[in-house]
Amino acid sequence: MQQSCCCGREDLPWSGRGTGLDISGCRFSLYPMDTDFVPIILGALEHTDTSAVWSESDALSTVYRGRLPYVADAVRGLFVNAYKPGIHMALEGQFSKGCPGDCDGDSLLDFDGPAPNSQVREKGFPALCKLALYPMGVSDYIDHIAGVYRMAQDAGLHPESIHYATRISGDIHQIFDYLEQVCRRMEQAVPHYILHFTVSVNSPTKEEEL
Amino acid sequence: MQQSCCCGREDLPWSGRGTGLDISGCRFSLYPMDTDFVPIILGALEHTDTSAVWSESDALSTVYRGRLPYVADAVRGLFVNAYKPGIHMALEGQFSKGCPGDCDGDSLLDFDGPAPNSQVREKGFPALCKLALYPMGVSDYIDHIAGVYRMAQDAGLHPESIHYATRISGDIHQIFDYLEQVCRRMEQAVPHYILHFTVSVNSPTKEEEL
Repeated sequence: MQQSCCCGREDLPWSGRGTGLDISGCRFSLYPMDTDFVPIILGALEHTDTSAVWSESDALSTVYRGRLPYVADAVRGLFVNAYKPGIHMALEGQFSKGCPGDCDGDSLLDFDGPAPNSQVREKGFPALCKLALYPMGVSDYIDHIAGVYRMAQDAGLHPESIHYATRISGDIHQIFDYLEQVCRRMEQAVPHYILHFTVSVNSPTKEEEL
Repeated sequence: MQQSCCCGREDLPWSGRGTGLDISGCRFSLYPMDTDFVPIILGALEHTDTSAVWSESDALSTVYRGRLPYVADAVRGLFVNAYKPGIHMALEGQFSKGCPGDCDGDSLLDFDGPAPNSQVREKGFPALCKLALYPMGVSDYIDHIAGVYRMAQDAGLHPESIHYATRISGDIHQIFDYLEQVCRRMEQAVPHYILHFTVSVNSPTKEEEL
């Protein structure tokens, strides 16, 4: 039986085809901590242009796949479109490229032109983010992690190491810009990476009181 | 500068001490999709016995550290204590052991005796879960992932491969038992692993309509 971390069609051998195509993806879940979470999520989906990505949803999460700039643009668009002042909301996601068993959803890899949700950059707000990077199959993975930590310092995102993750904070667009830059760096550096992140806004927790 | 995927005290070299101690951890965030999310979270924390783990919270997440059975027991206890019939809720987390830069929170490693939240096993409910396993620093990581997929089949959890993750479904205790078994297998098999998971209950999404 063949199985993968991602798509596991049992009829496919480990072809490595996932690393041969310029296809990235992001699986994410949006959590508005509000009784009206359904209209918030559906409204955000409706306002987000997903014409540049392949998309699939289930009860747990949604996945966008395509070329990195368009995947990142669609995830950013969705989160900014979902934002409501005063409502605590989190977005949990994982950007990835290069899974050896990757298959399906290979649409739109020739898509070119401007990112269709770029207008959301006009709407900014502060956010917290935790992230964890996994460069797979390489013994020097810690060095890659250290490199992206320094990128966060250089970007003014005030990284802090916490158990099992790194925290950053800043404007939502600084944060999404950084996540995309980490992906771009990793796709050059390693054959397969996963970048887990959680973005949180409007948390009622006052950290100085903890 | 020294940096790690977990705790990154810059004065510590890559000592590998994280792999030398029997210390596991779980960083998690609880997302009740309800306007009353604060009392739900605080009530669950209050009803969960954390005497067998080291704990730290910030605005994004909480981390429990200690010996695996007690860490897993505390996370399970928290989620079951937070459960409310009809309220959609998700728990996002990452179990891990063996980060080369691991430090701090090394308490309670001699703790022994029964898991203090075992009474929550009397309260079951159906749940969905997605998970992604990262055995770090080894070239055969896909084989480890395939092995835990087969474990889910054997446990009757109906695993399905989705892009970047595996889905399982079952009673909440079957799911937590499985997650703990994966951790136990990985701590024997590799020096450093991370197991990301998201458990979801009471989702209003009807998958047959997607």
